[in-house]
Amino acid sequence: MDDRAPDCPLSSQESKVTHRASRVVAVEAVAAALSEQLRSTASERDRQGGTPKRERDLIRASGLLSLSIPREYGGQGADFATVLRVVRRLANSDGSLAHVYAFHHLLLATVRLYGSREQWQEAYVRTAKEELFWGNALNPLDKNTRLVEDEKGYWIEGRKTFCSGANDSDMLIVSALRGNEDKLVVMAIPTTRGGIHPLGDWDNMGQRQTDSGTVVFERVTVKPSELLVSPGPFGNTFSGLRPCIAQLILANVYLGIAEGALREAKSYTLTERRAWPASHVSHPSEDPYVLQHFGNFWLELEAARHLLESAATELDSAWQSAEALTPEQRGNVAIRVAAAKVASTRASLDVTTHMFDVMGARATTAKLGMDRFFRNVRTHTLHDPVEYKLRELGEYALSGTFPVPSFYS
Amino acid sequence: MDDRAPDCPLSSQESKVTHRASRVVAVEAVAAALSEQLRSTASERDRQGGTPKRERDLIRASGLLSLSIPREYGGQGADFATVLRVVRRLANSDGSLAHVYAFHHLLLATVRLYGSREQWQEAYVRTAKEELFWGNALNPLDKNTRLVEDEKGYWIEGRKTFCSGANDSDMLIVSALRGNEDKLVVMAIPTTRGGIHPLGDWDNMGQRQTDSGTVVFERVTVKPSELLVSPGPFGNTFSGLRPCIAQLILANVYLGIAEGALREAKSYTLTERRAWPASHVSHPSEDPYVLQHFGNFWLELEAARHLLESAATELDSAWQSAEALTPEQRGNVAIRVAAAKVASTRASLDVTTHMFDVMGARATTAKLGMDRFFRNVRTHTLHDPVEYKLRELGEYALSGTFPVPSFYS
Amino acid sequence: MDDRAPDCPLSSQESKVTHRASRVVAVEAVAAALSEQLRSTASERDRQGGTPKRERDLIRASGLLSLSIPREYGGQGADFATVLRVVRRLANSDGSLAHVYAFHHLLLATVRLYGSREQWQEAYVRTAKEELFWGNALNPLDKNTRLVEDEKGYWIEGRKTFCSGANDSDMLIVSALRGNEDKLVVMAIPTTRGGIHPLGDWDNMGQRQTDSGTVVFERVTVKPSELLVSPGPFGNTFSGLRPCIAQLILANVYLGIAEGALREAKSYTLTERRAWPASHVSHPSEDPYVLQHFGNFWLELEAARHLLESAATELDSAWQSAEALTPEQRGNVAIRVAAAKVASTRASLDVTTHMFDVMGARATTAKLGMDRFFRNVRTHTLHDPVEYKLRELGEYALSGTFPVPSFYS
Amino acid sequence: MDDRAPDCPLSSQESKVTHRASRVVAVEAVAAALSEQLRSTASERDRQGGTPKRERDLIRASGLLSLSIPREYGGQGADFATVLRVVRRLANSDGSLAHVYAFHHLLLATVRLYGSREQWQEAYVRTAKEELFWGNALNPLDKNTRLVEDEKGYWIEGRKTFCSGANDSDMLIVSALRGNEDKLVVMAIPTTRGGIHPLGDWDNMGQRQTDSGTVVFERVTVKPSELLVSPGPFGNTFSGLRPCIAQLILANVYLGIAEGALREAKSYTLTERRAWPASHVSHPSEDPYVLQHFGNFWLELEAARHLLESAATELDSAWQSAEALTPEQRGNVAIRVAAAKVASTRASLDVTTHMFDVMGARATTAKLGMDRFFRNVRTHTLHDPVEYKLRELGEYALSGTFPVPSFYS
Repeated sequence: MDDRAPDCPLSSQESKVTHRASRVVAVEAVAAALSEQLRSTASERDRQGGTPKRERDLIRASGLLSLSIPREYGGQGADFATVLRVVRRLANSDGSLAHVYAFHHLLLATVRLYGSREQWQEAYVRTAKEELFWGNALNPLDKNTRLVEDEKGYWIEGRKTFCSGANDSDMLIVSALRGNEDKLVVMAIPTTRGGIHPLGDWDNMGQRQTDSGTVVFERVTVKPSELLVSPGPFGNTFSGLRPCIAQLILANVYLGIAEGALREAKSYTLTERRAWPASHVSHPSEDPYVLQHFGNFWLELEAARHLLESAATELDSAWQSAEALTPEQRGNVAIRVAAAKVASTRASLDVTTHMFDVMGARATTAKLGMDRFFRNVRTHTLHDPVEYKLRELGEYALSGTFPVPSFYS
Repeated sequence: MDDRAPDCPLSSQESKVTHRASRVVAVEAVAAALSEQLRSTASERDRQGGTPKRERDLIRASGLLSLSIPREYGGQGADFATVLRVVRRLANSDGSLAHVYAFHHLLLATVRLYGSREQWQEAYVRTAKEELFWGNALNPLDKNTRLVEDEKGYWIEGRKTFCSGANDSDMLIVSALRGNEDKLVVMAIPTTRGGIHPLGDWDNMGQRQTDSGTVVFERVTVKPSELLVSPGPFGNTFSGLRPCIAQLILANVYLGIAEGALREAKSYTLTERRAWPASHVSHPSEDPYVLQHFGNFWLELEAARHLLESAATELDSAWQSAEALTPEQRGNVAIRVAAAKVASTRASLDVTTHMFDVMGARATTAKLGMDRFFRNVRTHTLHDPVEYKLRELGEYALSGTFPVPSFYS
Repeated sequence: MDDRAPDCPLSSQESKVTHRASRVVAVEAVAAALSEQLRSTASERDRQGGTPKRERDLIRASGLLSLSIPREYGGQGADFATVLRVVRRLANSDGSLAHVYAFHHLLLATVRLYGSREQWQEAYVRTAKEELFWGNALNPLDKNTRLVEDEKGYWIEGRKTFCSGANDSDMLIVSALRGNEDKLVVMAIPTTRGGIHPLGDWDNMGQRQTDSGTVVFERVTVKPSELLVSPGPFGNTFSGLRPCIAQLILANVYLGIAEGALREAKSYTLTERRAWPASHVSHPSEDPYVLQHFGNFWLELEAARHLLESAATELDSAWQSAEALTPEQRGNVAIRVAAAKVASTRASLDVTTHMFDVMGARATTAKLGMDRFFRNVRTHTLHDPVEYKLRELGEYALSGTFPVPSFYS
Repeated sequence: MDDRAPDCPLSSQESKVTHRASRVVAVEAVAAALSEQLRSTASERDRQGGTPKRERDLIRASGLLSLSIPREYGGQGADFATVLRVVRRLANSDGSLAHVYAFHHLLLATVRLYGSREQWQEAYVRTAKEELFWGNALNPLDKNTRLVEDEKGYWIEGRKTFCSGANDSDMLIVSALRGNEDKLVVMAIPTTRGGIHPLGDWDNMGQRQTDSGTVVFERVTVKPSELLVSPGPFGNTFSGLRPCIAQLILANVYLGIAEGALREAKSYTLTERRAWPASHVSHPSEDPYVLQHFGNFWLELEAARHLLESAATELDSAWQSAEALTPEQRGNVAIRVAAAKVASTRASLDVTTHMFDVMGARATTAKLGMDRFFRNVRTHTLHDPVEYKLRELGEYALSGTFPVPSFYS
């Protein structure tokens, strides 16, 4: 099947920028090849769940872990727009791997945003050199992990849920409440540090290979140099870009999954579906209602794609501003990202639900696993309630106000 | 949990008809108890799939297999409205069992509609007396089974897909093409007849315990008295009620599943969900968007419920007309049924998709199996394309014409 | 054109109740004839606006003003279900006249609900005998009218907006704030009473002949026997039925207008529309997308019709309970009515917007005035925000609570 | 009120292209000023209908008639993206004037696409120099105009409907059927030519000042040099861009009107609307459902804006290719334009319908004329059925095929 289907224009906007072209094409080719590899086993792995060790190693081997790291630190210097297109491309085949890959870059960005220059330079250099894979243990709503300080230093104790990609990771971004003040502290520690136990207890209806289960921390030592407190979360305007990146990653995973669903629906309809007798056409590709569905699918995804690309451009521009970022710039990014989130949520739920209307009853056989697209987006789109993103857009449209920065906005 | 939740008013219309009340209440109580039994294991059995032998025997033991059989033949003489409420009640807990239970009554009705008086009287009497469970092997779109006649008599040969409830059944309704003419013949034969092999190969994303797999027929003898050819399909107007019954069963299964989904969503939201921080309310039951979702869910199901009840009333009235049924009466039933089908399709997909928006991310754990509601309705609503039902409504609304009778209309 | 189009089954449920049949048929015939009369001039009168004096007199002459008055007081003793079907039938042709006709019955019911036995008996008897037409000046959100008491007695002073049907009325229901306490008092006074000045200033985008303008009160004397204070608003549970009646009237006006719109769309499509070239069919009645629209229109209206009929039945039963009405019964009515309101709001906006998609560009000529259907429902559906009705349904579905009685719930 | 509301980012993409910036800013400033002028009288002129002579002269005076004419021929050399932003800006205030202004550029482009170099050079030069305003009398579905050739030359005879902007125009593009062959011929003639009678009979529910009425042709002489037959319609691939331009104009008018509607809704809600009692908030700008509506409005328009801008970019690139345009390039433009058309149709109907839900009942007063936004988009979106545009998107998404060039695709 043609990998450059009209529904997956990874590099559509790149052609104009000739001096970056060859590099981008190389990234795209690598991502496309990786995506195809993931695709061939995606349905089977969805059934099994568990840690996709082999596939995580394929990502490591692809070199794409250093994609967002600036070239001066040994990385490939890609902007977020490029990274997110790779995420989408992977999500075309496998929402779980796309998610943990994307979060790897979010966690690296977290060091950049929350940490000191020394901290993020080291993180960049080591990650690029050693091909480190970052996992997540930052969850502001889960208050069962504490950072304690005694005469011997810092240590963390507790358990944390929804730790995507913690299993088989090399580094972890961890959040904990400090002392008695309930002040959230974020830190970066090696996953091999003693006392860290990812339970591998993630068993979910969707995104089944993200390992978003529990990590137990048993008196885990933390070095002062591992605390990301300067500026830390909300320490300055720039640090407030983190939720924008996180949310835009989600949007790209949703869209990527839906693009993959459309690809399967198209292929199945063209090759397997029979025309419905009452349609009086010889092939479903002439059925007026099948065409209507495909028209809607494509239009929804196309509209979402534009919103996501626009948000990525805005984000890249804000990222360039770094510590000079103004609240208004940050607000504009947040609004574009919220728009991307809402649109991709709606489009992905719609496409993954109604893809079956074009494919028909026989496409529900477990052998094909076509329901995984819905289960993946339905699970992932619940990360935080889409209604409150829409409300933020409403406040902006009506009163011109920007979302108040939080871990979700 | 209160079994008479506002979303499941099984007997709402019964109270007025006092002389039938006690009997109906008894049926309802039996159905409710059976539904609760099915509910406790529904999620686990969804995971396993396969033939729900124990639960099929619970149905047998409930006495509900004779519900639609007239009292003079040993049954309980319930009208379709009552049978369909039982179907919905079972579907609240288990879409698969509701489906095979409902099709049992459809298949009995098939003997009544396609067969001679001798044939259906015998079917009624024996089914009531021996608690026979009927299974389906009638599939007009699958043309791989033939009825052959030679000097020794009739026999069938071939294989048939989507044979819901054939496993563990006592009697089968089978369709086959006759001779070289491609004329569809329907017959009723015992499942134990030599040469009948249900493969047990149903492994699907939804409705996983309907056993809707393949049945192989290896030179299966058919007695002349088993052929339902007088009047046979389309032999008279009355026989044309069969697709109406089949479609209205589907609608009731969809609605029943969605009612069950709403019940779970309600229970989970009240007891497990936490308020979203940005909502600034203390409990999700005060969240304006959660309430909006619940309002929509309830309204959609309530509207569908009215359409289904109305269609059942119309069907019962047509059934009473029997061989005196006019094409216009039959057309009116078909239109009410089509309306019920479209409305319940839409409502059930919407509720089972957006129930997660009120329950939140933690409700996606595989332990709860909440995605089975969506998988069940998504699978079952593909029985035939809903777009063509809507088109029939359009032809009626615009030109006043009724659907041309077929196996789907 | 056939007046008993499938979309307007005024008396569908009546046929079963033979002893009431002839009376109901008579009512229906009168209503149908009146509706046809209104229809022929509806578009032209929509352009002109103003008081439809001639048409109000047609209503007077029809005898339908006494429809809801019990037979023992000289009326026709119709239940609300029948009255509301007449309202809908009138709204098929003219939303404005349907509204003022329906509010006439609401205002009579207001005397029954808020007043003493002497008050409502007199109101019933005089209205039936003298063919009085009641108009509205009750508006709880408009606080610019006060009831003052001095040595000479009571008088009212102020101005009131949205006084539908006050012009050309014989009696008025007026609300005012009493003394300094902001306590709302309701009274029934003759429109001819000195000092009452309907300004005739209603000039609106829709419902243009409802005369919902301003009434000025200049020291208008009120007799003690005209104050409806026993029980008055919220004086007992029964009095709380008033908003249920008001809201159900609105729902029936919306549905009636939409049914009328569908009738016009059907007629125009069958006789005037040409097939679109790309459809490759010879007539729009074969166009798959035209049929889809008609299917949707019909289904939405049919679903709403069931919800409205069900609410009317519930209301009639509650009305029979009179002062013995329980809060739970009242709550059940309120919920059915809210469902009817939301469903008819959505359906009527949808049909009156998309009727143009089936009729095509030429149907937008001002000569046909087809936009009046949309303008009428869009105006009228803003009576109070539909979102809060949906929220009430949500509270009921989730927590089982009933709406708190108010002037809108 | 701030003219650069977040909903109207006319020049959002311009800032990057510094060498064109000052010119574009000037265009924008002129367009914004003109739009404000139109706005102050838009509601009143909507009521009156008729030819907006004064406003057409304001357009003439603005210099914007030469906007799309290349600089070498005396124009301002703007690309379509810029012209269409001006169209949208005008439509923010007045859909009628925006339409005739936009069609002026379409008709100029028609000469470029269908005519010879001599013909379009002359049209460009004269239009720029004499500030000619072009009007439309091309309507392929209306077959009542014929081009006849006799010994004295060519002449046209007949009548044509939907001739937008013919009144008060200086030049007309006319279509007629030639001889007995029903071959459509297009020509460009001065409106002052003897025998041309615009009837001024346009009286419609929306777009009331577009003068889209009938033009009667009474033996109107046509010079051979006025026939646009080389290449003529469908004469080459490039000429096939005409419907793309026409359709993209429509999309921009829809979006512009909807942006204007949102601006009014925002202003009214902030300054006039009162909070609904049951909302328990002090101002509607805090009402969760009001915010939800505004969020949806903004998101829909933003998504449409991206699709429109993307289509304009694609169109400009195709326009640059001129006679070298490939069918694939043309197909890509057609698809982007179809997407823009469908999205803006849906968004504009939705915003102009539901703007009332945020403004409330008092906003329906005829004084404000808020229904004109709906009436305008509802009328204009019927130009050709949106369902067939969606079908084209479906054919592209499923089979990769491009729309077959026609006057509508």
